[in-house]
Amino acid sequence: MLSRLGMSNPVVLAPMAGCCTPALVAAVSNAGGLGMYGAASLPASQLPSIVQDIRAQLQQPDLPFGINLFVPPAELPPHTEAQQAALRQVHAYYADAAARLQLDCEVAAPTPDLAALQANFTAQVQVLLDEAVPVIAFYFGLPEQQLLSRIQAAGTFTMGTVTCLQEAQKLQAAGIDAMVVQGSEAGGHRGTWYKTGDYTPHMTGTTTLVALLAQQVRDVPLLAAGGIMNGGQVAAALAAGAAAVQVGTAFLTTAEAGTPQPGRQLLLQDHTRGTTVTQAFTGRPARGLTNQATRDLQQLQQQLPLSLIGLVNARPFYNAAASVSSDYVLQLCGQGYPLCRECSAGELVRQLLQEAEAEVQELGKEDAA
Amino acid sequence: MLSRLGMSNPVVLAPMAGCCTPALVAAVSNAGGLGMYGAASLPASQLPSIVQDIRAQLQQPDLPFGINLFVPPAELPPHTEAQQAALRQVHAYYADAAARLQLDCEVAAPTPDLAALQANFTAQVQVLLDEAVPVIAFYFGLPEQQLLSRIQAAGTFTMGTVTCLQEAQKLQAAGIDAMVVQGSEAGGHRGTWYKTGDYTPHMTGTTTLVALLAQQVRDVPLLAAGGIMNGGQVAAALAAGAAAVQVGTAFLTTAEAGTPQPGRQLLLQDHTRGTTVTQAFTGRPARGLTNQATRDLQQLQQQLPLSLIGLVNARPFYNAAASVSSDYVLQLCGQGYPLCRECSAGELVRQLLQEAEAEVQELGKEDAA
Repeated sequence: MLSRLGMSNPVVLAPMAGCCTPALVAAVSNAGGLGMYGAASLPASQLPSIVQDIRAQLQQPDLPFGINLFVPPAELPPHTEAQQAALRQVHAYYADAAARLQLDCEVAAPTPDLAALQANFTAQVQVLLDEAVPVIAFYFGLPEQQLLSRIQAAGTFTMGTVTCLQEAQKLQAAGIDAMVVQGSEAGGHRGTWYKTGDYTPHMTGTTTLVALLAQQVRDVPLLAAGGIMNGGQVAAALAAGAAAVQVGTAFLTTAEAGTPQPGRQLLLQDHTRGTTVTQAFTGRPARGLTNQATRDLQQLQQQLPLSLIGLVNARPFYNAAASVSSDYVLQLCGQGYPLCRECSAGELVRQLLQEAEAEVQELGKEDAA
Repeated sequence: MLSRLGMSNPVVLAPMAGCCTPALVAAVSNAGGLGMYGAASLPASQLPSIVQDIRAQLQQPDLPFGINLFVPPAELPPHTEAQQAALRQVHAYYADAAARLQLDCEVAAPTPDLAALQANFTAQVQVLLDEAVPVIAFYFGLPEQQLLSRIQAAGTFTMGTVTCLQEAQKLQAAGIDAMVVQGSEAGGHRGTWYKTGDYTPHMTGTTTLVALLAQQVRDVPLLAAGGIMNGGQVAAALAAGAAAVQVGTAFLTTAEAGTPQPGRQLLLQDHTRGTTVTQAFTGRPARGLTNQATRDLQQLQQQLPLSLIGLVNARPFYNAAASVSSDYVLQLCGQGYPLCRECSAGELVRQLLQEAEAEVQELGKEDAA
């Protein structure tokens, strides 16, 4: 994978929608890694300028970079009465908190338009093909086989994310070029393909999941993702069977990241806060810094439908609340966040590789002794 | 740690109460690792013969081995009405299932006798000191400082288990000789010291938790525990910052293990079953193979009090049910169980080291290339 893409460093940037920037993506690719932009469900019309912005910052025109897209579901299951009631309670919770904090924001329940999401996804793919983006990554599943084949026929390197063996087998059968193995430590949305609410069977620790899949999936490079913050952990992932690592949280505090200031401060300073996986952020399970809302909604969130992103959209509330109180900072991140450091993204990529090499050398010496 | 104990292999046997045997403990120590016996809350009177049995099977009299003990709590919090109701429902569930399966077993609610547990713990420690057991490990906390000092003054090597930074800091302050860093992948009981019900903040992936603690706890050797099944993962744990690894599940299918046959078969053959962390097994959160009861009690178990082991004692039911149906096999194990292999315990210890060395050599070559 590294040689096909022309990477000299096994570090792949995790596509952190909302916190990544074209500058961050380019910095990782410029340092020999693979920069990835998290476009999620961004309107297709916005993608050309992002791609051009990334390209303009690459030190060599043929350096690889990638764009990550959310795959919309084929259909939306109807919500039960209990789920609708839970959704109403969540909306009331945010509205009440906004009133208490005297915030000037509206917490509306977005009405998901599945057909529009599906049309936008197809348009996103077309833009990326038109722009000849070297790597396209998929989240929450895969496009249908015909579209995937068209993408690969164009010479595009494809990736998907998996959280269990069954998903890995689907990716392998589809002929994916590489798979991101997302362990339970990972920040951001769980990349599972499941359609029902219980995500706990998809919460295997990163190193263990890599080892399990390395035995079963032999011909597809595995990228270890989840909790990786230093070079010792990079070496650990490679030792467990990964061909490369995908690192997100460690880049949140680099100079080029678009991380909002309140979240950046907590990542660097509040190491006892911890993280929580919750549906209360966006409607799908995601890991982020524990905050007042994740605690208040802990019981309720398990009754929420596994909805599209944005069905429980509290982003306006979080944006307004962040300036008032650190209780409501919404900052997605992984379990390793206390190891965040401040430096440039390129420096971090180089440090990770140097630390990994030093660790391997050290282990080799102990072996010889 | 390895040199102080005279170990030539960084593999420590996890103390799997119920599945360990003196033969298993001795086999691991004979192969250069450290055998550990999970005595849990076993009556102190049974310990002398176990220790003598282990010693009789050691190939050299000075080989190290250890015994692991459950530390009883200082006090039992009273159960709320809701918790008592949940307990009654759990007992009814097991009784109903026993009737449906036409089992001849009694599912009684054990009455916890805290004073007796505490007295037994003190007696256990005295037996181990009298028998000059080289290593004593503690679970669910630490004994009070005076007793710990007495144990260490006798030349005993002491270990404790931690699942977060706060517990690690307590162990370090107490002057522990080594700490087991239990990641979320681990099988068996969660070794947390907490007294309330929510164990999720103590569910950090193994490699990530090792990396986090390695930065904060510099003078105490860390044993990585959780999901480690092959030598690549041993190398990974060492690369992340561990001095050694503690391995349990991988030994469950070795010849010397006392693993009951139904559980042994599922571990080797049913790789889609998965594992669940639940209080429904014993009253404290533990990870084991997913079974009908963990599914049926999934919602209810979160309302159970975080009770002493045995407060929800379904062991008679499980023992009787195992011969009738694989739906009710109680087999504690970690997330890596699909990598279980059949061999002798000594062979496994040697394989783990050989695989780790080969992996480190391979990584070193890639570095040089």
